[in-house]
Amino acid sequence: MKKITIIGGDLRIAKLAELLAEDGFLIKTFALDKAENLNKLETIKKCSSMEEAIEGAELVIGPIPLSSNGKDINTPFSDTCITVEELFSKLDGKKVIAGSIKQSLIEKWNNVQILDIMAREELAVLNTISTAEGAIQIAMEETTRTIHGSKVLVMGFGRVGKILSNILKGIGAQVYCEARKDTDLAWIKAYGYNSVHLKELDNYLGKFDIIINTIPVTILKEAELQKVKEDVLIIDLASNPGGIDKMAAKKLGIKLIWALSLPGKVAPITSAEFIKDTLYNMIKEM
Amino acid sequence: MKKITIIGGDLRIAKLAELLAEDGFLIKTFALDKAENLNKLETIKKCSSMEEAIEGAELVIGPIPLSSNGKDINTPFSDTCITVEELFSKLDGKKVIAGSIKQSLIEKWNNVQILDIMAREELAVLNTISTAEGAIQIAMEETTRTIHGSKVLVMGFGRVGKILSNILKGIGAQVYCEARKDTDLAWIKAYGYNSVHLKELDNYLGKFDIIINTIPVTILKEAELQKVKEDVLIIDLASNPGGIDKMAAKKLGIKLIWALSLPGKVAPITSAEFIKDTLYNMIKEM
Amino acid sequence: MKKITIIGGDLRIAKLAELLAEDGFLIKTFALDKAENLNKLETIKKCSSMEEAIEGAELVIGPIPLSSNGKDINTPFSDTCITVEELFSKLDGKKVIAGSIKQSLIEKWNNVQILDIMAREELAVLNTISTAEGAIQIAMEETTRTIHGSKVLVMGFGRVGKILSNILKGIGAQVYCEARKDTDLAWIKAYGYNSVHLKELDNYLGKFDIIINTIPVTILKEAELQKVKEDVLIIDLASNPGGIDKMAAKKLGIKLIWALSLPGKVAPITSAEFIKDTLYNMIKEM
Amino acid sequence: MKKITIIGGDLRIAKLAELLAEDGFLIKTFALDKAENLNKLETIKKCSSMEEAIEGAELVIGPIPLSSNGKDINTPFSDTCITVEELFSKLDGKKVIAGSIKQSLIEKWNNVQILDIMAREELAVLNTISTAEGAIQIAMEETTRTIHGSKVLVMGFGRVGKILSNILKGIGAQVYCEARKDTDLAWIKAYGYNSVHLKELDNYLGKFDIIINTIPVTILKEAELQKVKEDVLIIDLASNPGGIDKMAAKKLGIKLIWALSLPGKVAPITSAEFIKDTLYNMIKEM
Repeated sequence: MKKITIIGGDLRIAKLAELLAEDGFLIKTFALDKAENLNKLETIKKCSSMEEAIEGAELVIGPIPLSSNGKDINTPFSDTCITVEELFSKLDGKKVIAGSIKQSLIEKWNNVQILDIMAREELAVLNTISTAEGAIQIAMEETTRTIHGSKVLVMGFGRVGKILSNILKGIGAQVYCEARKDTDLAWIKAYGYNSVHLKELDNYLGKFDIIINTIPVTILKEAELQKVKEDVLIIDLASNPGGIDKMAAKKLGIKLIWALSLPGKVAPITSAEFIKDTLYNMIKEM
Repeated sequence: MKKITIIGGDLRIAKLAELLAEDGFLIKTFALDKAENLNKLETIKKCSSMEEAIEGAELVIGPIPLSSNGKDINTPFSDTCITVEELFSKLDGKKVIAGSIKQSLIEKWNNVQILDIMAREELAVLNTISTAEGAIQIAMEETTRTIHGSKVLVMGFGRVGKILSNILKGIGAQVYCEARKDTDLAWIKAYGYNSVHLKELDNYLGKFDIIINTIPVTILKEAELQKVKEDVLIIDLASNPGGIDKMAAKKLGIKLIWALSLPGKVAPITSAEFIKDTLYNMIKEM
Repeated sequence: MKKITIIGGDLRIAKLAELLAEDGFLIKTFALDKAENLNKLETIKKCSSMEEAIEGAELVIGPIPLSSNGKDINTPFSDTCITVEELFSKLDGKKVIAGSIKQSLIEKWNNVQILDIMAREELAVLNTISTAEGAIQIAMEETTRTIHGSKVLVMGFGRVGKILSNILKGIGAQVYCEARKDTDLAWIKAYGYNSVHLKELDNYLGKFDIIINTIPVTILKEAELQKVKEDVLIIDLASNPGGIDKMAAKKLGIKLIWALSLPGKVAPITSAEFIKDTLYNMIKEM
Repeated sequence: MKKITIIGGDLRIAKLAELLAEDGFLIKTFALDKAENLNKLETIKKCSSMEEAIEGAELVIGPIPLSSNGKDINTPFSDTCITVEELFSKLDGKKVIAGSIKQSLIEKWNNVQILDIMAREELAVLNTISTAEGAIQIAMEETTRTIHGSKVLVMGFGRVGKILSNILKGIGAQVYCEARKDTDLAWIKAYGYNSVHLKELDNYLGKFDIIINTIPVTILKEAELQKVKEDVLIIDLASNPGGIDKMAAKKLGIKLIWALSLPGKVAPITSAEFIKDTLYNMIKEM
């Protein structure tokens, strides 16, 4: 495979175009006209129409996520507006990779080979690095203490919890991990963190300087929030509804930051590299 | 639950008896007569017959593993010989916990509630700590180099691979982890080790001072072994048949150590503590 | 010693007052009127005159640094203006602890027992923690990559270099440390970082994503700066003149951040705790 | 410099000869006849007389340590007996590097340029790596617990204490460091270990599973030893008289191991590499 076309997308996708070109692919782009990093590369062709861009492409890469409003694809580096319909109607028989694609779209456009890169587990794992660092950056900015020496609770020992705990310990925090399953508690002990069973959490809540949640279930409700330190910082990394009762936190005057989609925000270049690695895995399997 | 009876077992089980007594359980033992650590504890009753030991017990704990020869239970701390048949025939209606129990036994003695503690995943996770340290102790003893600064390959990124890599990195080794799955390779990267895909392994083999295998499939055959460093140390932690062609290694004069059942050998006291933690989880669920 | 008076100072000093009161000292303050954290503590007396504050004090604590303009003491939490002269003229026979005090002052007011807390090596060591985290926070904010996986050069292996390298490695960076002395290069190796001798630095400069300087001598001049990566981030932690030719960096369009006095800025509360620990060491020696 | 002659020495010196030959030096040896690793290298000339070996040499390397009995040089790989007198009497005008040379010898043979490689601080630093690993190997062998999770006290925060603590923490031990100086205690905190002031040591002694001493002053006398755990393991790394009252430990039945000269014992090859690095630094300065 040599010819790849990239349509729309944010800074990560613009950087991805650059990385792919450096690796020897012939790249054509559309709706990335304002991506300045692409101007300097002669081997990337910025096309003036979607038709021109798609012609001859062996693979088409779209935005990650494909669409925010469900109707138009994301094109932050262009004034061009492209609907999802418009895009897919021109991709008959093509292979397409984009992110966070609705299942209904995949079913509707069954003449297009659509693959969702955000469904790849290795990308989810790699993105935890950026999410963890983003959370730590927020903790550094929003507290008047060093992370080193602080007592930090990580709620949930899934992908993000694992890497976040590892980095926090590397900085010198006193890391406590909350989990429910005996196996997770064993892993927490094996990695050298302090383990806190969900059932005992209430007894520990008052000691933490920072609490970072990764569980998409509301665990810290008003009763629990009444037990935290007055000057605690809570960072919620879980998607809707998150793990903290936002109303109760506000009422109690607790500093709470709900931080979503960190990888693209805090480390777009690293994210582009992770996307490239994952893309190559997907190409190998084609 | 207050009354626990312990029959047979090795140093880990003898230590377990002590730990349980310290936690307030009323302990009776049989076939642990030579366990010196039990002599000093007045709250532990060493019984002179199995019947006396079992009478009134709310839980019976047997050896880990239950039996080595399939016929007698393991009683290294006693001259008493007890067959599996003999033991189970006296446990009608009792709850019994032991290790590595054959499924056929569990089915045959369906009037006894038999639970296998070695089937608990949290114990398997905790035991990786001892296995990893045991492997590192062997590496220290069998090489003329420091682990610090050595290039070490860990083959397989399962339970043992994860914790072994973590400790090796903590000592200062240059850690390379081999895996096949893209997700595992992503985890390896996220934890900061060098990742080696199984397919590329051949190109790397010549650089390692130490190779530690955790995969129970023969991966290093004669062709691969011809590529390793002359003075490499290979440690095989995988159960039969192991991951190394033993004959080929011998023929090529490669130093190979096949190390099995490390937890009970290198850290029996820590193992007893892990068994106790797991036992408590099992009791909670009864 | 029970009675301590605190005059002027920033958030760290205000927090110090609180910590000392919590430890049982009787605290009087002056020129900290706007420090809100002190309002809630009944055991701290905010005085309306310097005389009232000083009366009966067994120890007087002043600002850190004592003065920025050489004439007035630092009182950011008050509209009161107090000259250095005014302060010391009222402290005859008293013990005074403040920070960064000019030697000429100490000589002039030889009827006052003046001790400079910033001259204490243990405080300098503890402050490296905050400086290191502050530098890392800047690196996170000013780059589009994760620290994890980035190639980072730390120039100088003194106090800050040692702790900064340790934390960077803990986050997962590929850490390179530059030094001149063979002993320092040995320490760098022993701690597991990549060592770069100053003489070889030129050959390495092009590979770093981030360069952090801690040496107060200009090492990266125009010739060296021409060799760094186009999108490198350089952070200079060294006091005047710093280790980077600022003019050359600007001319070459290199992103350079000169970050001084980080502890008080990024972690005032932790700084207050370090000041307290050091203060107690000084009191023990009185 | 091209021509180096090596006389006597142990496995480290034999390995050093090999490493130097690989780096392109022309090596002649004497009194290393039984060193098997040298047989395979054609570029190393094993001489049959000291005169032949010394002739033309630009640098002569002797044993480390030079002599154990003060009279003969150390030649464990040879039946040849060479007195110190004999050796130096043939080295008029030569440059000689060996280890642990008595000052009186250096003064007596002032027609020989004698340099003591064991006086080099960078070698002392590098050797701490081997010493630390040797101590950890002993701890693994002599305890029935894992290092991971054990409470370990490191007495003294000098060179060995620093690297030992770092590796112990990397393995997952709970590390406590004892020191006297406020600055050392600050470093201990900055590196994330638990700090114990010598004055408070008594209150802590009962909690440790392992105690490793690096201070060459007897600190643990009978009174202190009565406070340690019954099953503690004490490792003394300090040279004579060591930091533990050996008689008292024996009387109290405490397991004590006095481990000296670990680098040459546990990691001779790594030691040879460190010697080579240091040798090159010395040659640069010639």
